[in-house]
Amino acid sequence: MPHDEPLHGDIIRRVEESFAAQGLMQHLGVEIACIRPGEVTLRLPYDARLTQHHGFFHAGATSALADTAGGFAGFTQFPPDSSVLTTEFKMNLLAPARGECLIAVGRVIRSGRTLTVCQLDVHAQQGDDRTHVATGLQTLICLPASAPESPPRDTTPGLS
Amino acid sequence: MPHDEPLHGDIIRRVEESFAAQGLMQHLGVEIACIRPGEVTLRLPYDARLTQHHGFFHAGATSALADTAGGFAGFTQFPPDSSVLTTEFKMNLLAPARGECLIAVGRVIRSGRTLTVCQLDVHAQQGDDRTHVATGLQTLICLPASAPESPPRDTTPGLS
Amino acid sequence: MPHDEPLHGDIIRRVEESFAAQGLMQHLGVEIACIRPGEVTLRLPYDARLTQHHGFFHAGATSALADTAGGFAGFTQFPPDSSVLTTEFKMNLLAPARGECLIAVGRVIRSGRTLTVCQLDVHAQQGDDRTHVATGLQTLICLPASAPESPPRDTTPGLS
Amino acid sequence: MPHDEPLHGDIIRRVEESFAAQGLMQHLGVEIACIRPGEVTLRLPYDARLTQHHGFFHAGATSALADTAGGFAGFTQFPPDSSVLTTEFKMNLLAPARGECLIAVGRVIRSGRTLTVCQLDVHAQQGDDRTHVATGLQTLICLPASAPESPPRDTTPGLS
Repeated sequence: MPHDEPLHGDIIRRVEESFAAQGLMQHLGVEIACIRPGEVTLRLPYDARLTQHHGFFHAGATSALADTAGGFAGFTQFPPDSSVLTTEFKMNLLAPARGECLIAVGRVIRSGRTLTVCQLDVHAQQGDDRTHVATGLQTLICLPASAPESPPRDTTPGLS
Repeated sequence: MPHDEPLHGDIIRRVEESFAAQGLMQHLGVEIACIRPGEVTLRLPYDARLTQHHGFFHAGATSALADTAGGFAGFTQFPPDSSVLTTEFKMNLLAPARGECLIAVGRVIRSGRTLTVCQLDVHAQQGDDRTHVATGLQTLICLPASAPESPPRDTTPGLS
Repeated sequence: MPHDEPLHGDIIRRVEESFAAQGLMQHLGVEIACIRPGEVTLRLPYDARLTQHHGFFHAGATSALADTAGGFAGFTQFPPDSSVLTTEFKMNLLAPARGECLIAVGRVIRSGRTLTVCQLDVHAQQGDDRTHVATGLQTLICLPASAPESPPRDTTPGLS
Repeated sequence: MPHDEPLHGDIIRRVEESFAAQGLMQHLGVEIACIRPGEVTLRLPYDARLTQHHGFFHAGATSALADTAGGFAGFTQFPPDSSVLTTEFKMNLLAPARGECLIAVGRVIRSGRTLTVCQLDVHAQQGDDRTHVATGLQTLICLPASAPESPPRDTTPGLS
């Protein structure tokens, strides 16, 4: 990890602020379960509005949850004046995502100055049972906090 | 394509029925734009409830849209008594997803008796401008229509 | 795991036979390091014929090693009259692959009747130092042993 | 494409030099078929030393070929004093890779200052028949030419 570790309280505040600014997280009903340096856990309670045609969690909901957990996991290790974007991710769906809620954990595997790689895992919980329903890998890019909004497109590093 | 082509009207009806049964599609506000054999286009109008921390479409919304377009593209070529599940997909996010709406196209690249591979492409539209914001690959599995609900886990092909 | 566990000696013999039949493994200089049910470790000593333009192991060598380790990991859990094919895999290259040898471990994460998912990890070893140079995910398909050679294309499950 | 287009003759020379410096390309028997700005085609003649257990091209050979085609495709658009590394790639194997040779095409889809995304396609050729045997996506990072060798690890952008 090439950056000085930010203070724990500061990490939590920054993740919570970014989370609150993501309309999709509120719309899906995602909750923050745990924030640690390099590892973030999110929880998504079952709702009929999150389903696919069999009534299970839609792969799109599972993946949005996993992608966000990984993005925040990387973000906990980024310098204060920075922002995070996913450049790519890949999910393998291992079992039907049925249960009372989904629990997604994003963990930083490799942290670099520009790119960070996370492992993503999603479990479905039903009572005391947990089923591993999805696993994935994700690449994040660390950008100056104001980058995506302001500069002309061809000067945006990485995603221009 | 190993199956007899279903009639066009039947394809459209089956996709529309499956789409209507997916709670997440209604919750996100996804619309069917075009259904053709092996190719389905979906549209997602901008809404603040679909955003990430910069106010663009969240990668989770982009990916859910792309995954669903691909799933239906494969489904158009499946036999009548079958169901579709995504076994894996991968997205590369090419540019910030900002615009009035996202347009996702799923196209079957290779159709087999068990596995189907789709290419996924998402563009953001703003007035007359279209930006290619994401591309991906997806593997689908063709299951007997009733498979995921009823059988004991270890008899479900592929995802047991 | 839906199949009866084959006997350990039988697993080792089947993996060794399949390994010996893979021309590429000999050509690259790959060695079997460890065979366990659901987990296979391969070793690739450094050779200037395996390099990219900086003199490190080429990502193609790293990936061929990882893909093969995963394929054998799945194969250890397949029934006797079956064969294994990779349907897809994804690698994240975490660090330059420099060292005396590469060590790749393939581990079955989820084993189904048709599809098996493996995690792939490659470390570069230099003296006592080990660097995690690549991680990946892979989907395998279990086929009847004679399938890919003989049947007409459109009856080969999954890959037809 | 954020960089000035290098001259065509210069692109060809730089790709050929880099190709000649990659031990693995010679060891596998890869040939350059075509170099264009943003698109490179490589050819790999069949050899029993490139096979898997059914006698087809090994997925590892197919993937090494595809990864290299994409790497060079990106490299054609990089500034003169730079180097290319693959940060991740994903392959879907669509059909058994049997034939006289494999033809891999890497094409730049999106070119940024730091990251470039390529589409990878591999066909097997047998007489006049061509079969699409693999498709993939790849992310490349553009580094200063001397980066991976000299700096201490934690200052290497992206892969440190």
